[in-house]
Amino acid sequence: MAVDKYPGTWPIPAGTRDLLPGEARRRRALENQMVTVFERWGYQEVATPTLEYFDTLAIDLGEEVGEELYRLLDRDGRLLVLRPDMTTPIARLVATRLRNQPLPLRLFYLANVFRYESPQAGRLREFGQAGVELIGSSGPEADAELIALAVEALRTAGLQEFQISLGEVQVINGLMEETNLPESVIRSLKRALTQKDLVGLEDLLLEHQVPLQKREMILGISNFQGGLEVIQEFRKLTANQRTIQALDYLEQVWSSLIKLGVDPFVRLDLGVLRGFEYYTGIVFEGYSSDLGFPLCGGGRYDNLLSKFGYPCPATGFAVGIERLLLALDNQNKKQ
Amino acid sequence: MAVDKYPGTWPIPAGTRDLLPGEARRRRALENQMVTVFERWGYQEVATPTLEYFDTLAIDLGEEVGEELYRLLDRDGRLLVLRPDMTTPIARLVATRLRNQPLPLRLFYLANVFRYESPQAGRLREFGQAGVELIGSSGPEADAELIALAVEALRTAGLQEFQISLGEVQVINGLMEETNLPESVIRSLKRALTQKDLVGLEDLLLEHQVPLQKREMILGISNFQGGLEVIQEFRKLTANQRTIQALDYLEQVWSSLIKLGVDPFVRLDLGVLRGFEYYTGIVFEGYSSDLGFPLCGGGRYDNLLSKFGYPCPATGFAVGIERLLLALDNQNKKQ
Repeated sequence: MAVDKYPGTWPIPAGTRDLLPGEARRRRALENQMVTVFERWGYQEVATPTLEYFDTLAIDLGEEVGEELYRLLDRDGRLLVLRPDMTTPIARLVATRLRNQPLPLRLFYLANVFRYESPQAGRLREFGQAGVELIGSSGPEADAELIALAVEALRTAGLQEFQISLGEVQVINGLMEETNLPESVIRSLKRALTQKDLVGLEDLLLEHQVPLQKREMILGISNFQGGLEVIQEFRKLTANQRTIQALDYLEQVWSSLIKLGVDPFVRLDLGVLRGFEYYTGIVFEGYSSDLGFPLCGGGRYDNLLSKFGYPCPATGFAVGIERLLLALDNQNKKQ
Repeated sequence: MAVDKYPGTWPIPAGTRDLLPGEARRRRALENQMVTVFERWGYQEVATPTLEYFDTLAIDLGEEVGEELYRLLDRDGRLLVLRPDMTTPIARLVATRLRNQPLPLRLFYLANVFRYESPQAGRLREFGQAGVELIGSSGPEADAELIALAVEALRTAGLQEFQISLGEVQVINGLMEETNLPESVIRSLKRALTQKDLVGLEDLLLEHQVPLQKREMILGISNFQGGLEVIQEFRKLTANQRTIQALDYLEQVWSSLIKLGVDPFVRLDLGVLRGFEYYTGIVFEGYSSDLGFPLCGGGRYDNLLSKFGYPCPATGFAVGIERLLLALDNQNKKQ
């Protein structure tokens, strides 16, 4: 077959994709499976505009995501962005148009989101998310419900080998507190940790003269992975109240996961941090054996809705549609 | 209930919408109906990126749509746009990645598109389209298939009273040819006709000293609405070969519509023109009794694919999802 010059002549933007017949059908089938699971668990679909005002989304963006925004000016000179996730738009929606509804609210969405990332393998600039938000429920049972629903979503899609890594951002916040460093430095430390950039993390800790023992705890946090014993071990190393409360909370979530029968799919990982700044409690990410990036992720964000004038606890997660399709491809190749 | 200040405090961009629980579900149900109809007729789903390079979309944009583009710069300084429709992206997709596939190709999509329109009633800046493209088939049977599929899509959605207005752009192009005016003036005339701006149209015709008889034909074209008799009447008024061939073609399409049993849903309307420049043959729009804008629209575009290096006839249409939901609402209110 002759080399075809046309795809190069009419390229599409880096990090975006066309879906051919068959590919689009398969994606729709997966999306429909997600809808079925979410509805069975009592979640209701909502949708929001692809474009939001920057002021709305800037309310609680992480530095990393902030840099990745697609921005454009509307004709009145106001800054618009292509939404980088659905959690903040849905918080806005709940705090404005659903604030008179009885709580808890169980909402789900299927939406494309946009981030100006370097288009490496699996790093798309436009990608689909199927996600849920449980709004108005605090406590470990609510968090465990979300994790169990994530497990169910991945299993319904047909994924057999995967694992949810579960952490709690206050474990790390407690450690950071102990360093007495200014907020801006702590943000840089967390960013390095989120990116698993241990060299950069160590450089920062040395530069800011964090004492050896604290330095080692921060650098070593990602080694605390496993079952409940991880929490027991970490307890021995710290007297920080914030960290200890977070460990207590993780134990309670773990008990709820056992009741729901999904603990075999979950592994504690005290080093889990995510790119969005809005997380306040547990955070989790789903991994399959041979994919180097999470298939799904989420956590608790109890302060986000209050920024829209509606103080209310919340927790949620999203599955990355393209990543899940890739994991299913890899699984099929092996079989 | 107290007046709620929050929706105003955290507005969404004009011409966009949130869908609440129930609304989103209803929309998804309608989309699934469209998928079912399109697949039953042998159409396969494809998808393209929300963002395209301006150079790709500019290949055959009408002036009106060109002004309505959402533009942004990517970080390499290239101009991107939010797609204003799916026909050009799918032409690009076919001409690049599907050019080795046997023809005809029957493709469908469900996608949101973006136009910077004045947000009057029903004029959204982001809206959903469910559409099909039949690529590689010329001739009246192919055009009639598309019209019949549009009828079937609206009926499947539950719409009872609607009408497809059917015209042929070459009827008007023939009349325009007779004026011997430069291309730029003809574009302005067509634009006024598309917008049904008869005052502006007459002003232009007078300004450019178009003789009375031709002026009256152009101004009066929208009065030629009805069954086959419309074609007979119009034949008496013109000797232009392009116009006459277009009238012949419309008669053939009409015969095919009768064979398919959908002629009761169709009305000839020689004044139909649409905003996109790429149409080369029949054009049609679907209207319900009490909605002032089309629910669906499409037509033949035999030159678009050749601009991507793959000469190939094509015809297609799209249903406006929000407009169809609105028409269904109106119908339910009356019953």
